[in-house]
Amino acid sequence: METTRKTPYLRNTWYVAALTTEVGADGLFTRRLLDTSVLIYRRQDGTAVAMQDRCPHRFIPLSMGKRDGDDVVCAYHGLKFDCTGQCKHNPHGTGHIPQAARVRTFPLVERYGFLWIWMGDAAADLALLPDFSPLTDGDPHGVGYTYMHRQANYELITDNVMDLSHIDHLHGEIITTRGQLSPQVPRLRETATTVSARWEWKQTPAMMIFANFLPEPQAEARHFFDITYTAPANIQLSVGATQGNGALDLLDCVGQYDLHTSTPETEGSSHYFFATRRNHNVEDADYNEMKIRAMHEAFVTEDGPILDAQQSEMGTPDLFSLNPVLLTSDVAPVKVRRVLQRLIADERDARLKAVG
Amino acid sequence: METTRKTPYLRNTWYVAALTTEVGADGLFTRRLLDTSVLIYRRQDGTAVAMQDRCPHRFIPLSMGKRDGDDVVCAYHGLKFDCTGQCKHNPHGTGHIPQAARVRTFPLVERYGFLWIWMGDAAADLALLPDFSPLTDGDPHGVGYTYMHRQANYELITDNVMDLSHIDHLHGEIITTRGQLSPQVPRLRETATTVSARWEWKQTPAMMIFANFLPEPQAEARHFFDITYTAPANIQLSVGATQGNGALDLLDCVGQYDLHTSTPETEGSSHYFFATRRNHNVEDADYNEMKIRAMHEAFVTEDGPILDAQQSEMGTPDLFSLNPVLLTSDVAPVKVRRVLQRLIADERDARLKAVG
Amino acid sequence: METTRKTPYLRNTWYVAALTTEVGADGLFTRRLLDTSVLIYRRQDGTAVAMQDRCPHRFIPLSMGKRDGDDVVCAYHGLKFDCTGQCKHNPHGTGHIPQAARVRTFPLVERYGFLWIWMGDAAADLALLPDFSPLTDGDPHGVGYTYMHRQANYELITDNVMDLSHIDHLHGEIITTRGQLSPQVPRLRETATTVSARWEWKQTPAMMIFANFLPEPQAEARHFFDITYTAPANIQLSVGATQGNGALDLLDCVGQYDLHTSTPETEGSSHYFFATRRNHNVEDADYNEMKIRAMHEAFVTEDGPILDAQQSEMGTPDLFSLNPVLLTSDVAPVKVRRVLQRLIADERDARLKAVG
Repeated sequence: METTRKTPYLRNTWYVAALTTEVGADGLFTRRLLDTSVLIYRRQDGTAVAMQDRCPHRFIPLSMGKRDGDDVVCAYHGLKFDCTGQCKHNPHGTGHIPQAARVRTFPLVERYGFLWIWMGDAAADLALLPDFSPLTDGDPHGVGYTYMHRQANYELITDNVMDLSHIDHLHGEIITTRGQLSPQVPRLRETATTVSARWEWKQTPAMMIFANFLPEPQAEARHFFDITYTAPANIQLSVGATQGNGALDLLDCVGQYDLHTSTPETEGSSHYFFATRRNHNVEDADYNEMKIRAMHEAFVTEDGPILDAQQSEMGTPDLFSLNPVLLTSDVAPVKVRRVLQRLIADERDARLKAVG
Repeated sequence: METTRKTPYLRNTWYVAALTTEVGADGLFTRRLLDTSVLIYRRQDGTAVAMQDRCPHRFIPLSMGKRDGDDVVCAYHGLKFDCTGQCKHNPHGTGHIPQAARVRTFPLVERYGFLWIWMGDAAADLALLPDFSPLTDGDPHGVGYTYMHRQANYELITDNVMDLSHIDHLHGEIITTRGQLSPQVPRLRETATTVSARWEWKQTPAMMIFANFLPEPQAEARHFFDITYTAPANIQLSVGATQGNGALDLLDCVGQYDLHTSTPETEGSSHYFFATRRNHNVEDADYNEMKIRAMHEAFVTEDGPILDAQQSEMGTPDLFSLNPVLLTSDVAPVKVRRVLQRLIADERDARLKAVG
Repeated sequence: METTRKTPYLRNTWYVAALTTEVGADGLFTRRLLDTSVLIYRRQDGTAVAMQDRCPHRFIPLSMGKRDGDDVVCAYHGLKFDCTGQCKHNPHGTGHIPQAARVRTFPLVERYGFLWIWMGDAAADLALLPDFSPLTDGDPHGVGYTYMHRQANYELITDNVMDLSHIDHLHGEIITTRGQLSPQVPRLRETATTVSARWEWKQTPAMMIFANFLPEPQAEARHFFDITYTAPANIQLSVGATQGNGALDLLDCVGQYDLHTSTPETEGSSHYFFATRRNHNVEDADYNEMKIRAMHEAFVTEDGPILDAQQSEMGTPDLFSLNPVLLTSDVAPVKVRRVLQRLIADERDARLKAVG
């Protein structure tokens, strides 16, 4: 069995491989993740499974083949593999199945509207999958999901969300803070594997996405952003506004609970996944669809071209090698880069120690 | 004179450069072969000649220039070369022709409907050109030729034909053996430079391409495939069916005599040439055209995407470096790869010994 | 601040960055020069300025941002830079501006209808900018400018113009010398940093671009070409024809004063700029437009494909590494290549000496 290329990604961790809705009941879904082609499909009981999208015989993508119950049959010579990656039928000669006729599988878990994949060599550890259950707890019309492909390293996507000070400069009227965000240095909280940042401010009127759900749409409102990074590339973002005296949280504010998460395709390109659940107007299916479409459009037309141009101008995935000028607003993204760097180094050290 | 790049191809051998019909009476035909741009054109007596498609002065492709009788004139500065590659006119200054003003030519032989080129440094050896005369012996409406470009290493094309067990899995109703082929391990015959494989089987009804030419189209028929590889990349394939008691050969069967041959463009892309002569309905021009078009279509829509995807997924021209799982059906293609590997090593050793 | 990549270009010299007309009063113009993205814009007083097109914070092209008076504001986080490259506003945190928050600027001079840029580390030296004032001295309808992008190393463009013997072979009826040019070895004149070549000849009728402006369009005329190369890639070309007894120069002939100049984008692609002023029919705006359009068309359809094919066939920017056959007609381009090679070596030596 071919081992996957050792590129400097964190491997013993969960990445989003696809939106739940991207992988249908039938059919064979393929996506390149961490420089490896991955086949994803659902067994007849609906459980999604993942394996390398490469027949071990002649290296044809298995996704070019066809389904046979819970198995997949290679298009070229008809080898059949079950969903554990084991070859269970060889139509050639005596039908003997060589011991090496196995496809590498990857642990895959379906949670919070996403399919999460574990591509490391260590045993998959569900305790490492963060809890994003608020996304799926609630009315189905109160949550939206979307996917984008970007020609940019995934850490540039993480930087983008960890430094929300960009929103007044890059984005339009819909989510402007009217200049309130940039002067603030966010309050940080850290653990060994997470970095959180929090901003609080007042603006008049409130952010457009919330104003019409507040008592006085044109009046001042208190706001907050609270974001938490968890490795490798998950950022849970909560944002809300209130004109009352309650706490600045999603219980007392009109607001939303979002997840930004990205997965490397290669070192220079990424899969960007986004989900958003709001705590207001939650049964309005039309509004729900409009909202996720508008957010997708904003990413694609505003953040997307910036990220791609940044990657192209950098010419390398390694930001620090270019000696960037750092601002106070970089405090959160820089901490995140250091956390990830340390986790990758720890993983490499553990591997070397195991070997030798 | 620029020497051609030393990539690991067998060089002292004949490759197909083009179909006879691709190179017209006038004009300058160009194709990249073994990482080298090659110009091919016909002298006024119809003889085709080949030389490097690169003016030795400023490296302009000569195919951008124009014909002048049997000579070719460079588009940029008007240097004229005869078909031995010798510069015979320099319009500049005194007209002195520098000794180095020569283009490397390549021996070119027109046989069996193809133009065969010799790109090695040793003297061209016609004894090394296999005999495919059955292609051109017979009615002109009994034979068809076609050409395809593929984004795949040429050895993947050879593998494809040497392991015919793929046909029931990859191809449609037209050439199915109804599962009869895969269980068989072909009988092999070998010489120092050839590998042959033979399958015999019964099926009901016969292969669709033959059924209507047999006495009872819906009844059982005996079949055979007999293929012979000759280096570097020629596979002569005979296939036929009979409902009589005669031998399983093209004398006693309804069948056809095919040639599959490919030539590296680069290590990752190839020129694929195919010819087929049948021994039935040989004067039917419409059927002839329909048949070659159908076979071309099957290659392009069925084998082609598989070969290109295989190359892309492999990411290298070196199959064995990826430790493929081998099946009994790989016995012929693996032997072929070993023969070619040995011939290339022998050629390299001879070159090194010659040098010193 | 990122230093630009050290590719083997002459750096302490003036290159054309753009035509005057390419950079409007507002807006942000970007072009990649010597492997570096360059932003060019005009201050409100019309003066054009150039700086690296890369924010030092997150490496976004500044050309994606917006103008604010004479300043430019980065699209991503709103850093504002003045036209000396100094960051003068940081909207984040306390607004403190880090010392490294500077963009590298490049001296830029607007002359002769072009914007000239100095990308070297030494102080810009205006004495090194050749005098092409005849282009801008005279009627505005007597001069035309054009720009082309080429997939070829800039030295191939210089070769093309320095060896005018190609024109009878490559070009059509409009500028043919009817075979008079090729047999001549041009007369050369040299200085430490320039190479000039001169051809004189008679032809009947005169060059088509001049014939109708001569007393007897169908009769013989005396002609001259006089070209002067100045590093890095400027060729001033004068050409004219007369049926009188005067000198073969632009005072006594019907003729034109041209500038061919090119700037590396990368080692394999170039920006090609061309200007032409004629000394006849100088107030005819329609003729002027037709003439520059015709010359642009000739470059694009005749020289352009040759240069791109030459680069592609060479597969390297280094012509001499391929051992070209040299003709007497190469005397001028070869001298030019040696001058440039020496200047680049001198610059490297000076840099090494300065270092240590």
